[in-house]
Amino acid sequence: MQLQDTICALSTPPGMGAIALIRVSGTQCFPILEQCFTPISKKQNLKEAPAYTNLYGKLHRNGQPIDDVMLSVYRNPKSYTGEDVAEIACHGSVYIQQEILKHLQQLGCRMAEPGEFTLRAFFNGKMDLTQAEAVADLIASENRAGHQLAMQQMRGGFGNEIRELRQELINFASLIELELDFGEEDVEFADRAALSALLEKIKKVIQRLIGSFETGNVLKNGVPVAIVGAPNVGKSTLLNSLLNEERAIVTDIAGTTRDAIEDELNLDGVKYRFIDTAGIRETEDVVESIGIRKTFEKIEEAKVVLYLFDAQQLVDEDSLRHTPGQARSAQADQDQEPELVEGSLTNSNLQQIQSEIATLKEKTKGKTLLIAANKADLLSSATVLNEKLEEPFIALSAKEKQGLDELTDQLKAVVNRQALSGNEAIVSNSRHLVALEQALADLQRVEQGMANHISGDFLAMDIREAFKHLGSIIGEIDTDQDILGNIFGKFCIGK
Amino acid sequence: MQLQDTICALSTPPGMGAIALIRVSGTQCFPILEQCFTPISKKQNLKEAPAYTNLYGKLHRNGQPIDDVMLSVYRNPKSYTGEDVAEIACHGSVYIQQEILKHLQQLGCRMAEPGEFTLRAFFNGKMDLTQAEAVADLIASENRAGHQLAMQQMRGGFGNEIRELRQELINFASLIELELDFGEEDVEFADRAALSALLEKIKKVIQRLIGSFETGNVLKNGVPVAIVGAPNVGKSTLLNSLLNEERAIVTDIAGTTRDAIEDELNLDGVKYRFIDTAGIRETEDVVESIGIRKTFEKIEEAKVVLYLFDAQQLVDEDSLRHTPGQARSAQADQDQEPELVEGSLTNSNLQQIQSEIATLKEKTKGKTLLIAANKADLLSSATVLNEKLEEPFIALSAKEKQGLDELTDQLKAVVNRQALSGNEAIVSNSRHLVALEQALADLQRVEQGMANHISGDFLAMDIREAFKHLGSIIGEIDTDQDILGNIFGKFCIGK
Repeated sequence: MQLQDTICALSTPPGMGAIALIRVSGTQCFPILEQCFTPISKKQNLKEAPAYTNLYGKLHRNGQPIDDVMLSVYRNPKSYTGEDVAEIACHGSVYIQQEILKHLQQLGCRMAEPGEFTLRAFFNGKMDLTQAEAVADLIASENRAGHQLAMQQMRGGFGNEIRELRQELINFASLIELELDFGEEDVEFADRAALSALLEKIKKVIQRLIGSFETGNVLKNGVPVAIVGAPNVGKSTLLNSLLNEERAIVTDIAGTTRDAIEDELNLDGVKYRFIDTAGIRETEDVVESIGIRKTFEKIEEAKVVLYLFDAQQLVDEDSLRHTPGQARSAQADQDQEPELVEGSLTNSNLQQIQSEIATLKEKTKGKTLLIAANKADLLSSATVLNEKLEEPFIALSAKEKQGLDELTDQLKAVVNRQALSGNEAIVSNSRHLVALEQALADLQRVEQGMANHISGDFLAMDIREAFKHLGSIIGEIDTDQDILGNIFGKFCIGK
Repeated sequence: MQLQDTICALSTPPGMGAIALIRVSGTQCFPILEQCFTPISKKQNLKEAPAYTNLYGKLHRNGQPIDDVMLSVYRNPKSYTGEDVAEIACHGSVYIQQEILKHLQQLGCRMAEPGEFTLRAFFNGKMDLTQAEAVADLIASENRAGHQLAMQQMRGGFGNEIRELRQELINFASLIELELDFGEEDVEFADRAALSALLEKIKKVIQRLIGSFETGNVLKNGVPVAIVGAPNVGKSTLLNSLLNEERAIVTDIAGTTRDAIEDELNLDGVKYRFIDTAGIRETEDVVESIGIRKTFEKIEEAKVVLYLFDAQQLVDEDSLRHTPGQARSAQADQDQEPELVEGSLTNSNLQQIQSEIATLKEKTKGKTLLIAANKADLLSSATVLNEKLEEPFIALSAKEKQGLDELTDQLKAVVNRQALSGNEAIVSNSRHLVALEQALADLQRVEQGMANHISGDFLAMDIREAFKHLGSIIGEIDTDQDILGNIFGKFCIGK
C-alpha cells in the first residue's frame, strides 16, 4: 500500500439509494477536487472552505455535469484519516456513483483497499490497533452485546490498560539494562522485590483479561447452543416459536429490515446460535453410531446443551389409541388432545430418556445442560414426569408457546451480561487473546528466572518479549505487514 | 401525510457499509437532536451551530452511547426540504442504523414515507413537480442518456418553458375575462389576431415537446429491439458477444458492481432491451402459428427489428459432408471450417429467407429493420450472398466476434443522441406527455371556437383548461393527492 497516494471509495453500502457517500483522502484530495467541483455560490471556493463545513456544488467532468453534490471538507490533521479528507454526498444512482469514482481515478485518485482509510488513521496516530479493530467490529455488530463491546474497545479503554502495563514493564527493563552497563560493579538498580510485585500485578491483570475472553467471545460471536434430540421431538417448531417472539419485539423499520437467520436468536441483545444434532440413542448400527459421534463433537463446541425430548413419547400408545369417543379427525385432534393417564408411561421410553440424560451429564461437564420436555401440554400434569425424572426440566409446548419464557430465562442466565455494564475491559478478539497468553508465558519465565537467580540480561530479554507481545496488541511495535493485511483486509470498502 | 411532523429515514442503501446516513427534517429536528446528540468538543453546541457545518459527537440514549457520529446541520429555509434538516453519518452497522432510527422515533420523529423529503421540498417551493420527478429519475438512472435527461430536467429547463407558456395563456385569459365584465358594451380587449398568433406559437412548442417524447422515452427507458430468428440462428451467442464487449469497456469499480442484465446492452450510454422472438416461418401448424402471432405482437412493441438468419443454412448440406479430406474431429472442425462453394446455396432456404424479409418489411413500417447473417465466417465471401439477397445486410459471426461493430453502429444510429446535447427540453415522462396532449386538445378547441366566433366566456373556459393541464405538469395547481402519491410513492426511502 502506498500511503502517499490519494485514495477514494464508496463508503455507503453498494446499490441504489437516496444518497451515496464517496470518500477521498490524501495530500492531493483538494487539488483533485478543485478540478471537478464548483460551488453553486460564487462567493464560495473549495480552497478557502473551512474544515468541518459543507459546500453545495456541481461535480463535473470537463464542464459536463455529473451531479449536484454536497461536499464535506476535513483538513489534515483533524479528519478521520488524519489527512485531507472530502466526503461527497451524491444522488444514490449506481451510474452516478460509478461515474464519480471513474472521474476521480482519471484525475489521479486510486481506489482504496478495504479498511485503508482506517489503516491510514492508525498510521497517522489517530487510533491504536485495538481501536481500529473495534471500528470493524462496530460495523459488523448485529446486536446490543456486540455493539457495546465494540464501542467500549473503540473508546480505547482496553488499549490504554495495555499501554500502561507495557510502560511499567519498559521502565523496569531499562533499570535492569542499566545494571548491565555497570556490568562488573554488581549493583542492582532494579529492586527485585519491586519487580516481583510488579510482575504479580501485571500477571493478575493479564489473567483477568484472558479470563474475560470467554465472555467477550460469547458476547461478540454468540452463544453456541447444541440441541440434542431425535428428529421428531419438535426442534424446529421450538426454534420457530422462539424466533417469532423475537420478531414480534423487533420494531420493523422500513429500509433496514434484513433476513432473519433461521437458527440465530437474539435474547436481551446477545446472540444464541442453535446447532442441530441427532439424538444419542445407543445403537449397534454403524451409520447411527457415526451420527452419535457427530453429536458429541457438536456438544464439544457448544457452551449450552439443550436436551429436548417428546413428552408424548411417554404416553402409552395404547392409551392414546383407545381413548373412548375420540374421532380421529384433525379437528378432534386439536380439541381433545389425549391426556396422559397416570401410570401409563411407557417404561422403555422413560428409561431411554433417563439414560440419555445420564450420558449427557457426563459429556457436558463445564457446560450448561438444559433439559426440556416438549409437547408437555399433552401431560395431565407435569408432576407425573417430576416423579419419574430426577433432573430438573422445563416443561414446554413449542406449538402452543407454553413454557418458553422459562427456557429463555435459563438461556439468558448463561451469559454474564453484567460484565458489559462494568468498566473493566473485556477481550473479544482472538488475536489479543493469543498475544496476552504469550505475554503471560513470558512473564512466567521472568519469574522463574528470578527464582533461579539468572542474570539481568536474560531477565531483560524475557521482559522485552513480554512488552513486545503487549505492544503487538495496540500496534506500538513495527507491526507485521501480514498482520495488518489480515486485520484491515476484513474491513468494508470505504472505511 | 402530516407536513408538520418531524420525519426521519435511512437515506443510504439498506445493509451494512462503512457509513450510513440518517436524515431528519422538520420543526422539531434540532430540539429532538439536542436530547440525544452531544458534541465531543465542549466548545460546540448544536443550538448555535451554523448551517452547513458538521459537528462530531456522541449519539446516545439516556446517556448510553449508541455511536460516535458526524452531524451535518442545515437550517430552514436553506436546506433540501426547506425545513430544519440534520444528516447523521453513523457507522454503517445495521444494528446501529436501527437503534438510531428507533431512538429518534422514541423522541418524536416519524419514519418518512418514500419520497417525503422531496415532497416537502416541493411543498416548500424548493422545486417544481418536474424537478421532483427528475430527482427520482436521476437516482434510478442506469446509463448516460437517462442520467443526462434527468439532470436536464432537474435543472428546471422544461419546467420553466411550461411556466412561461402558461403565464402567456393566463394573461390572455384575463383579457378575455375582462371583456366579459363589460358584457353589453361589445368591446374586445383581447386582440383576436394576437390570440391566434399566440395559440399557434404555444401549439408549436407543445407539439415539439410531444414529438420529443419518443426520443425521451427511448433515452430513458431504452430502445426495444426485437430479434426475429429461429432458435438455432445464434441469438444468445450474439447477445453474449455484445455484452462481453460492453463489460470489457466498463471499468470494474469495487463496491459498485452490479449484476448485468442478460438482455440489456448499453451502447454509447443508451440502453437497448433485446426481446427474443420465434421465427415467422409460414406454417399450417396451429401451435406454430400462435408463435408467429406472438412474434408479430413483439415486433409491434419494438422500435428496432433485427432479423437474424444462419448463413450456414444456405450452405448445401451435401457440399459440407463431402468436402474431401475433412476429418470430423472437434479439432478439425475448428481448423477447417467448411467453405461455401459458390452456387451451392440451398435454394429452398434462400427462398424462405427472402420471403421472411419481405414479410418483415411489410410489418415494420415506421420502424428500423436490420438484417444480419450470422455464421458468415463460413461463407467464402459475402458477395455470394449479396448476389442472392436484394436487401442490404450485415454479415457477422457472433462466435468469432466479427462484424459486431457494424451492427452496433447501426443500432446506435437509431437514436438521435444529439437531442441530449442541445438545449431543447425533452419530454421523457408519460405523465407530462398526457398533460401536454390534453393541453394541445384544449388549445385546438379554442382555435375552433374562434373560427366559429363563439363568445369569450367559452373561449376563456377552454384556455383555462389548457393552463390547468400545463400547470399540472409543474404542480402549480392544487395537485391531486393520488397524483402526488403516485409520483412520490416510487421514490427511495430517505429521499
